[in-house]
Parts: sequence; structure tokens; C-alpha cells
Amino acid sequence: MKEHKVQSGWRHRLHEVIYEADTPAGKYFDIVLFFLIIVSVLLVMLESVDEIDAKYHSLLATFEWIITIFFSFEYIARIISIKKPFKYIFSFYGIIDFISTIPLYLSYIFAGSQVLLAVRAFRLLRIFRILKLVKFLGEASQLNAALKASRAKIAVFIYVVLILSVIMGTVMYLIESDEAGFTSIPRSIYWTIVTLTTVGYGDIAPQTNLGQFIATIIMILGYGIIAVPTGIVTVEFSKHGKKNKNNMSVVHTNTQACPTCTAEGHRDNAKHCYNCGDEL
Amino acid sequence: MKEHKVQSGWRHRLHEVIYEADTPAGKYFDIVLFFLIIVSVLLVMLESVDEIDAKYHSLLATFEWIITIFFSFEYIARIISIKKPFKYIFSFYGIIDFISTIPLYLSYIFAGSQVLLAVRAFRLLRIFRILKLVKFLGEASQLNAALKASRAKIAVFIYVVLILSVIMGTVMYLIESDEAGFTSIPRSIYWTIVTLTTVGYGDIAPQTNLGQFIATIIMILGYGIIAVPTGIVTVEFSKHGKKNKNNMSVVHTNTQACPTCTAEGHRDNAKHCYNCGDEL
Amino acid sequence: MKEHKVQSGWRHRLHEVIYEADTPAGKYFDIVLFFLIIVSVLLVMLESVDEIDAKYHSLLATFEWIITIFFSFEYIARIISIKKPFKYIFSFYGIIDFISTIPLYLSYIFAGSQVLLAVRAFRLLRIFRILKLVKFLGEASQLNAALKASRAKIAVFIYVVLILSVIMGTVMYLIESDEAGFTSIPRSIYWTIVTLTTVGYGDIAPQTNLGQFIATIIMILGYGIIAVPTGIVTVEFSKHGKKNKNNMSVVHTNTQACPTCTAEGHRDNAKHCYNCGDEL
Amino acid sequence: MKEHKVQSGWRHRLHEVIYEADTPAGKYFDIVLFFLIIVSVLLVMLESVDEIDAKYHSLLATFEWIITIFFSFEYIARIISIKKPFKYIFSFYGIIDFISTIPLYLSYIFAGSQVLLAVRAFRLLRIFRILKLVKFLGEASQLNAALKASRAKIAVFIYVVLILSVIMGTVMYLIESDEAGFTSIPRSIYWTIVTLTTVGYGDIAPQTNLGQFIATIIMILGYGIIAVPTGIVTVEFSKHGKKNKNNMSVVHTNTQACPTCTAEGHRDNAKHCYNCGDEL
Repeated sequence: MKEHKVQSGWRHRLHEVIYEADTPAGKYFDIVLFFLIIVSVLLVMLESVDEIDAKYHSLLATFEWIITIFFSFEYIARIISIKKPFKYIFSFYGIIDFISTIPLYLSYIFAGSQVLLAVRAFRLLRIFRILKLVKFLGEASQLNAALKASRAKIAVFIYVVLILSVIMGTVMYLIESDEAGFTSIPRSIYWTIVTLTTVGYGDIAPQTNLGQFIATIIMILGYGIIAVPTGIVTVEFSKHGKKNKNNMSVVHTNTQACPTCTAEGHRDNAKHCYNCGDEL
Repeated sequence: MKEHKVQSGWRHRLHEVIYEADTPAGKYFDIVLFFLIIVSVLLVMLESVDEIDAKYHSLLATFEWIITIFFSFEYIARIISIKKPFKYIFSFYGIIDFISTIPLYLSYIFAGSQVLLAVRAFRLLRIFRILKLVKFLGEASQLNAALKASRAKIAVFIYVVLILSVIMGTVMYLIESDEAGFTSIPRSIYWTIVTLTTVGYGDIAPQTNLGQFIATIIMILGYGIIAVPTGIVTVEFSKHGKKNKNNMSVVHTNTQACPTCTAEGHRDNAKHCYNCGDEL
Repeated sequence: MKEHKVQSGWRHRLHEVIYEADTPAGKYFDIVLFFLIIVSVLLVMLESVDEIDAKYHSLLATFEWIITIFFSFEYIARIISIKKPFKYIFSFYGIIDFISTIPLYLSYIFAGSQVLLAVRAFRLLRIFRILKLVKFLGEASQLNAALKASRAKIAVFIYVVLILSVIMGTVMYLIESDEAGFTSIPRSIYWTIVTLTTVGYGDIAPQTNLGQFIATIIMILGYGIIAVPTGIVTVEFSKHGKKNKNNMSVVHTNTQACPTCTAEGHRDNAKHCYNCGDEL
Repeated sequence: MKEHKVQSGWRHRLHEVIYEADTPAGKYFDIVLFFLIIVSVLLVMLESVDEIDAKYHSLLATFEWIITIFFSFEYIARIISIKKPFKYIFSFYGIIDFISTIPLYLSYIFAGSQVLLAVRAFRLLRIFRILKLVKFLGEASQLNAALKASRAKIAVFIYVVLILSVIMGTVMYLIESDEAGFTSIPRSIYWTIVTLTTVGYGDIAPQTNLGQFIATIIMILGYGIIAVPTGIVTVEFSKHGKKNKNNMSVVHTNTQACPTCTAEGHRDNAKHCYNCGDEL
């Protein structure tokens, strides 16, 4: 640990604060970021409500600028503190960070580009990283593992549901008239999925007796079909819970991110990144 | 048992009747209270139906007064029979009891304060305490324990659902027009949750092809997502059922509440409150 | 077996045909009855469709008479072939059989009494008895046993759902206006259950921001709550499936009904009714 | 393998390409077919959207002809390469292949016969065969086995749901007026299933207090009932998962189809069809 502190200086310290949460400063930074992301998303939401925007436009705009400036500094800090900046810039989070920051500046050049601010909602995903701080991480990774294990089964299931929807949607298009809302096959398929998933908006609904009869069959199918993913996930959870007890409490990972390639999930005692081999 | 009966006299006996259900009088009191709470809630319901209120206003008002007077006496009795009255007054139930009783008196001073009577619905929660009388208690505590054990997993799950809703809601706001009902981001998020939970009112529904396509994805996601809490709870139930057989039938609790601090769930053979240490 | 055939003569043979399904004649009778019940229910359905009734009224009326006459004979035969007729007449099935038969005769005296014919739908329940013929019986009894075992847990669950609905319904009544459909507390409770069960008609839907926010909470609650009965039933099924293998394949019941008291589910080798002790 | 290659010549090689996926040519053919089926279904969909059809009619028609000609050749090749052509022609897939190909030719003789093209959606089912190529097969067969094992239980369940729907539908027809949408018993049953499966379109919704009360009961029933298929399927999945580990990884099947009778699912080392006994 000692030698590479020497080697990297302030950029390394900045990296520890921004990308990691092992030091008090890093934790504090993550919590402030968490708070600001939520505020920024709330700001975009409130601006979209016409009544609120009409009343408090200047107040919201001020907050918008404060947050945008903070995000701009954060974006620059992220770039200069990492060893390979392009890896960050073209990563998923890098692009989202960029699009969440730039629109306010652009709005002076192109009208309407502010609409891109809505992309900020995606920054909420970053919270998953921050959440590592808290004990929920273990639970989340368990859920994740169970879902991954049942991925293939769920894919088959969704494929069957889609084929069924295409066939049933086509049949309903032939039976029902345009007046009932079945104006095209894609729209009929949309209706079939609305019905099969038991959402049932009612904007499109069968009017003929035959159409209602087939709708009934689709509903009962949907009622039965919903049992399948539930069964898959439950069995997987139950398996996973058992495995966990035996052999999964051995490896402890921490919240460090590799300063070179941003790979995460290193063992507590790791000295080199498992991905690029660089020192941590 | 003998000494503190001597010590506390009629206040102690009143406490036993009102707060506990071990004596015949206590059981009888609880059943009457149970019945009156249900009647009082039904009264508030019936008054809210315009046709019924128009016809039977005076009859309903009379019943309202009878019940309010009983509740007033009960409230005073609860205060004087407990050793630390403020603990009760500022407890959750104490506040609800107060708000369920006072509005009728206030209605002579402030018009419209009767609306607060609706708070009475919360008194129904007290029934859970009364239910301890019956055998359902064991079942309820089993359900409760299973839900508590899966609390962290369910929290992660709800968090994921909320983030997904914010992101999808924002996307739908950008795609769909105001005419379809997507007038603001908060409303679009509302729609996303309506869809993801498969409720599907249909007051807001996508009109464009792209909007309907994304709605389809949200529905299938919701269809799959519903499997997760089910899986979590099922596994927890199944675990808990097994544990139960081994080591949980040892401790028997009773319906006594501590006369000092109102803590509940004492062992049958307890002589002192596990919370404040006072004699029971 | 020999002696009581002698003893009871044709009434016993009639009883065997009508109430049991062990003899070929009994099976044949049950299948004809099954078919006629379905036809009679279809007739009532078709008559309720205005267009069909207008076209084929006389044809439907003829069929109606044929079936009613058959049902009348069956009803009389059921009474005379049983040892204690009043036990049948005032049993659940006895009353339904009577109400399914009599309205057509009554329609000559009281106009509109034909509406009672709809009660015939309840005769479909009789099919469960006839179904004993087929192998599904074992499956049905397994489902039944699992549901019975989880009865108490499901009762607690429904109770919690109802209290939650009353409280949430009252809160929504206070928040939302009459225009949105929340005209009274009972109607608001109706809306809450529509939402909590994820049905979501959309005839009543919140309009205000606060109302939509609370609706969102109710939906997510409902989404989580649905996991509870599923978990309960799954665990019970899984337990029951295991028990079954060990000790439940020993007792075989048959489709005989006691000629005296109509009790069912006798062991194959039973000679006396387990309920009234009479000979089978 | 050697001898029957000699025996059958080019017809056998054609059979290997079209019906099987063991050779590179066979795999390539299946992938092209998969792609063309999806394109053909998309074409029918796009033609049904009025705006798109108006703009790109000639382009779509050209593609339609190209695909129809390919399908025609495929259909003829399937007939001549099989030993018993009638077995294919009158099989499920044979009929669908015919109906997916012929309407375009017919449209020159009978106007409107193009509507039959929608039958093509059923060709998507063929993809299940092609999917054998990929690893999903094992997962699908597991799902399938679990569903088959719980078939009887699910049949009982659906039967109970249907009877309940008929009874509840009839009751609602008697309670609710025509204005609310309950115009006939079949329509009321349709509404009951819409409610019981928690779809809830809202095109038909109860207006009276009694109707809404019964609707509430139906919803809570539906909420509980949905637990049953889930429980059944979950237990079956969990059983099946355990079995799998012990004794099901022994028999390996391949994607060969018998050239005589088209039976599928032969063991890897099979030399004769398990169905007709002919050489593979």
C-alpha cells in the first residue's frame, strides 16, 4: 500500500475519494453524490410539472445550475484522477455522466436540448455502487445470483410468451374490428400482452362475443403462465440459500475500483486488479 | 401477584381490565371494544354515503354521540389506570385514540373538523392486539417473522422497482404526448408503476407505436419482477416452518401489557417487564 | 351386500343409480346428468342474450321444458329413493335442485320468477361429485388439503388486507374529490381493493398528485402482498406432497353416498356409514 | 451410416438439410429459415398497419413474393425428400406450411384471401425445433416436464375457476343493470374472468353498491386463487430439479427427425426410429 501512495500523489488520493468508499472522505463524497443525484432527478421532475415550473422557474433554474456545476467538476475530476481516462469516458457511466451534465450548457446554443436532462434518471443506477456501503449488498448479490442462474429458463419462458402473443394477436386482429381498437396486427399484439400480463388498460377491449371468448382464454393462460417465472425464481432462491451456507461466505470483496480500468469487486486482500493486473 | 394487587388497588384492577385480556372482565372489555370500534368505523362510512346520510342523519348522529362518549370514558380510564400516563398519551395508539374521540366535540367550535373522524379507521389496528385472544396469533407471528427475515431483500427489490420506474417514466414522458396523459414526469412515473404492478387503470395509456412497444417491455418486466417477492417470501416461509418445529415452541407469551410502559409480549412466567423492569 | 339388497328392493336400486357411481347404470346416469346440467346452464345463458332470445325463443323454451321435466323427475326420484327425505330436501344440494326446477312452473303464476333459473349455475357444483369418477379426485383432494392446512394463515392475511383497505380507502376519500369517483368511503374502499389486488378497472382513478402518490404506495404494497398467499400455499403444497408419499396412500375411498344421511367419502371396505352408522 | 447414404442418394441428402441440423448445411438452412419466418411475420404485421401499407405497398409486396416463392420451394422440397409425403402434408406443420404459402397465389383468384397470410404467425412455432440447436433445449424440456406433471392439478384448478366464474357471472347479471355493461350472462361471465384474473379492463364495471361488494369478494378470491397454480408449478419445479440431478443426464437426444415418419427426439446412438422402426 505504501509504495503506490508515494508513486501517485494527489491524483491517487482524488481517485480514492471519488471512486472508492474505504476512506472517510470517500464515504462522505459518495453520500453527498447520492444526495445530489436524487436532488437533480427531483429537479428535472419538478420542472416537467407545468404549474410548478410556472411558479418557481427561477428558483429551480438556480438549483439546476448549482448541481450542473458540481457535476461538471465531478466529471473533470473523474477524468483526471484515473490512469486511463478514455476507459471511463466511453464506459456506460462515463457517457451517462456526460449527458447528464452537458445539456444545460448546450441549451444556450440549441433550444430544447434541455430535454436531455431527463437522462439524469440513469445516474440513479450509480446508487447501486454507493449502496455497497450498506449491508444490503449481500442481499442484492443473492437476488442477482438467483436471477442469473434462472436466466436461460426465463429466456425460454419469455420467448414462449412472445410467440403466443404474436399468434393470439394475429387471431384477434382477424376477429375484432377497427372500432374496438384492433387497428393493426402490432396493436393487437400490444393488446394481447396487456391482457396476458393481466395489466388490462381497457383502451382496447374486444367487443364481439368470439373476441371476448378468446380474450377469456388468453386471460386464463396468463393467469397460469405467471406461475412459471415465480416457480423458477423460487426454486432458484431456495437452492441458492442452501449453497450460500456452505461455501460462499469465504471470499470477501470490497468497494475498491481499479484506478486503471475501473473493474470492481476485488478481494479484500487483493493487491493487483484481477482484470488488468495493475496495482490497486 | 398478591403484593402488588394490594399496592395498586382499583387503578391496578382497571388496568387489568383495559390493557389485558387474562381475566374474564378483561376479555369481555376487549370484545365490547372490538365491537364498538367496528360500529364506529361503519358509522363514519355510512355518514360518507350521501343518500344514507340524508335519510338517517339524526339516527347516525345519536349513535355517533353514544360511541364518542364511550370512547371518551375509555380514553380517560386508559390515562388514569396507567402509571406513566404520558407514555400512553404520546404513543401511537394514544394519539389515534385521542383523534378518534375529540373531533365530535370540536365540531361545535370548528365546522368541518368532523372529517377527522375518519382517523378512527386506524383504531382497527388495535384489533390486532385483541386478536391475541384467539389462536390466530401464532399464525400471524409466523407470517410476521417470515416477512421480517426477508425485509432486507424486499427493500432491495422495492428500490430496484422504484429506480426502474423513474427511468422508464422519464423515457415515456419524452416519447408520449400530453394528450395521452403523460403531462409530467411524476405522472409518467405514476403510470409506469401502474403498469409494472399490472394494475393498469387505463386513464393514462400510450398512443404512439414506440410508446406501446416500451409499455410492452415494462409489462413483461413487471410480469417477471412479480416473481421476486414471491420467491423471497416463499423461501422464508419454508425456512421458518422448519425452524418452528425445532425450537420455537418453548417460550409462551401472554397478552399482558406492562402497567408502566405498555410493552407487550411478556413470558407467561414473567414477573418484571423486560423493557422497564417494573413489576407486572 | 346381499342382505340389504333384499331389504330395500327397487328404492335401493334407484338410490344406487342416482346417488352412487359404482354400478354401470349409476355411472351412465351421472354422465347424462352432467351433460344435462351443462345444457341447462347454457340454455339460461343463451336466453339472457337478447339477440339469440329474439330469434330462437320457442326453440330455447322447448328445450327448457324438456330439461325442467327431467329435473323434476330426478328431484322426485331423489326424494323417494332416500331413507330420510328431509335430510336431502333441506341439504345444500336439495335446495339448489328445488330452486333450479320450480321457477318455470312458477312463471305461469308470477311473472319474472324465471330469473331464478339462474340459480341453476349452482348445480354445476354437483359436477364435483360426478368428477369422482375420474382420476382427478386425488389431485383435487390434495389441493383441498393444502388449502385447509393454510386456512388460518390465509384468514389472518385477508384480515390484514381488509384493515389496510379500510384505512387506505378512508385516507383516499379525504384526499380525492367526488369528480374522481371517490364519492363515499365504501366506494373508496372498493377502489382500494381494486388497486391492491392489481385489478385496476380505471372507472375510479386518483386525479390529484397526492392521491396518485398514495395510489402508488398501495400498488407496490399490493405487489408485495400478493407474495404472501403464494408463499403460504406453496409451502403447504410442498409439505403435503411429502406427507402423501409416506402415509396417505393407504385409505381408499369410493363414490358411495350413505342412503340414509347422504354422507360421502366412505372407505372401500366400509359396511356402515361413518356418520349415522346405517348400513351402506 | 454408410449404407443408407448409398441407398437414398440426393433425396436423403435433401432430407438431412431440411429436416435435420446435424450437418453444417442443415444448420445453415435452419438459420436461414428462422430468419425468413421472422421476416415473413414482420411483413404481414407491417401490411396490417394502414399508414405503412399506404407508403411502402409495392416494396412490401415484392418482399412478400420473394418469401412466398422461397416457402413454395421449401414446401415442395419437404414433400419430395420424405419417404411418406402424406404423413408430412397432413401433419400440423405440413398444414401450416401450406396455408402460409398458398394465399398469395389465391389472391389472384379470390379477393381478400390474403387475410390467411396471418396464419404464418403459427410458423413461428417451428422455431422451437430450430432452437434445439442451442443450449436452451434442456431448459425448455425441464419446464415442459414440470408443467406436464402438474397437468391434472392445473386442470382441476381451471375447472374450479370456470365454475366459480359461471356462478359469480350469473349472480352479477341478476344484480347489475344493462347500463353497467352486464347485458347478458355470457358477458357477465366474461367480466368475472376479467376480474378474477386481475386483468380488469374497466369496459364493464359494477355500478351498484351490492355489485361492487360482490366484485370485491371476487377480487380477493382471485388474489388468493392465483397462489394455487404458482404453488403447484413451484413444487413441481423443485421436485423436478432434484430428480434431474440423479438420473436424467444419461440419455442424450439429438435433432434428427425420422426421414419416414418425422418423429423426433432420437437418442444419439439410435439407428432405428423409435416410432416406425425405419432406419435413420
